[in-house]
Amino acid sequence: MDSKLSAMADPICREVEQLLQQCLKNYTDEGRLRDAASYALMSGGKRVRPLLTYGAADACGQRSEFLTHAAAAVEMIHAYSLVHDDLPSMDDDDLRRGKPTVHIAFDEATAVLAGDALQTMAFEVLANAPGTEQQRIQALICLTQAAGGRGMVSGQMIDIQQVGTEIDLQQLQQMHRRKTGALIRASVKLGGISVLEATADQLAALDGYAQALGLAFQIRDDVIDQISTTEVLGKTQGADRALNKPNYVDLLGLEAAQEQLVELQKTAESALEPFSGNNSSDAEILGLIANFVVQRMH
Amino acid sequence: MDSKLSAMADPICREVEQLLQQCLKNYTDEGRLRDAASYALMSGGKRVRPLLTYGAADACGQRSEFLTHAAAAVEMIHAYSLVHDDLPSMDDDDLRRGKPTVHIAFDEATAVLAGDALQTMAFEVLANAPGTEQQRIQALICLTQAAGGRGMVSGQMIDIQQVGTEIDLQQLQQMHRRKTGALIRASVKLGGISVLEATADQLAALDGYAQALGLAFQIRDDVIDQISTTEVLGKTQGADRALNKPNYVDLLGLEAAQEQLVELQKTAESALEPFSGNNSSDAEILGLIANFVVQRMH
Repeated sequence: MDSKLSAMADPICREVEQLLQQCLKNYTDEGRLRDAASYALMSGGKRVRPLLTYGAADACGQRSEFLTHAAAAVEMIHAYSLVHDDLPSMDDDDLRRGKPTVHIAFDEATAVLAGDALQTMAFEVLANAPGTEQQRIQALICLTQAAGGRGMVSGQMIDIQQVGTEIDLQQLQQMHRRKTGALIRASVKLGGISVLEATADQLAALDGYAQALGLAFQIRDDVIDQISTTEVLGKTQGADRALNKPNYVDLLGLEAAQEQLVELQKTAESALEPFSGNNSSDAEILGLIANFVVQRMH
Repeated sequence: MDSKLSAMADPICREVEQLLQQCLKNYTDEGRLRDAASYALMSGGKRVRPLLTYGAADACGQRSEFLTHAAAAVEMIHAYSLVHDDLPSMDDDDLRRGKPTVHIAFDEATAVLAGDALQTMAFEVLANAPGTEQQRIQALICLTQAAGGRGMVSGQMIDIQQVGTEIDLQQLQQMHRRKTGALIRASVKLGGISVLEATADQLAALDGYAQALGLAFQIRDDVIDQISTTEVLGKTQGADRALNKPNYVDLLGLEAAQEQLVELQKTAESALEPFSGNNSSDAEILGLIANFVVQRMH
């Protein structure tokens, strides 16, 4: 992250991580379950999704305690999905962010249960979040939908079935729209839901931003997988390619993939225009995140 | 089930199963995920938890569309827990209700994802259920708590760590109070939540019933595991004992376990007394379920 984004991100991450720690502490007295859930949730990570939630709330002009809970819930769903995706029966990954994955550091049964617990925890946090009942219900509808059968879990199901098969660009996009895009959209939308005064126009603009960003995120992942090394990546380099998983670089070529990233950044930035020049709102974080997503090396 | 309970249960099961089918159909267009979730959710089972939810609502004097959704959500959580418990890394069971378990009928990755999807689906159903926002939030708080870190998932974590260890009766009860008891209590409580006019006294009486029933349920399971055959059981007979899992029969002896079942049935029935003689309420289903739970052979 560049220094400006880092400076804005640091206090947000501290706030969200403080809540995550508190949730983990209160969640269970069962030591191994808590240790594994904590290992998955607190082992670094860039907290892109919570930053998006905060960025969207800032664009709509307000932060709140509800926002912190919504950001924490999204990060829990993300963490659960990584723990289960890494399992031997799925992507069989031993490394994540430079550290052993949960089923390596603990064991497979513990990884299954820690993922399960993180999912439940996300919805428990939202159900108990300090907001209106309507906000909590809206947030729960948003997040269950994003994680569900037309979102993340179906994307992962499509992904594992596509290993070793030939698919076209449209099918690849469809898969990623669900596997990673749905949760990125939900992260942004939850920021909007956290602001009671957010208008329908603001929410629509945010969603335009989120859709472009979600696609850019995945293309950049595939570009990184091609050009980076295991050391920089913190996970096994070329792992997806080794699994013979379809990816944007193979389908588009490296150059065209990078050109598309530039286009998507422009689309994301245009979507934020309605927020500029409005004193009470500030879409700066969202703009910086778009820049970060297409430039990052890991 | 005896014929009286069956006659009362049949229309309830039809109603709940119709909603489950509809939820599965709407949930995802991803065929394999839907097939596996459907296989887990629609392959028989006695629907004890939905019956408890309906029974509790009847005791409080009212059925509603919200009730059906709450009963369906509980059954989804139950189904998700069975799919994950049966995984090779957990109990490694090949048979469930006389049929191959999900990871045998499909594969392990599909079983992990189908379980994940069923969990998300349960909370999505509640978030969208046709009730007041307050009811939906109360139901979500109830079910996330029962499934979570001081409930079902922690019980399963304790269970897998206890394999081959020596534990006493208190530890065994503590484990089961979480692993199966918490969801049984939630099933009953959700029936109460579905009735807007339910009183605090009614809810407390229902919870007394549910706690006795939850314990009886597990003791009877262990008794059955001792006295039944694989054919009657529909799952591998003696599986828990083969895994060297602590159980009530080993700790209490068969006779004392059966005596305790009689006592628990009495406790459950006494808890229902406040509902007798009240024209607008009917705790008959709950009484019949208590009788069924301690008598059943599978």
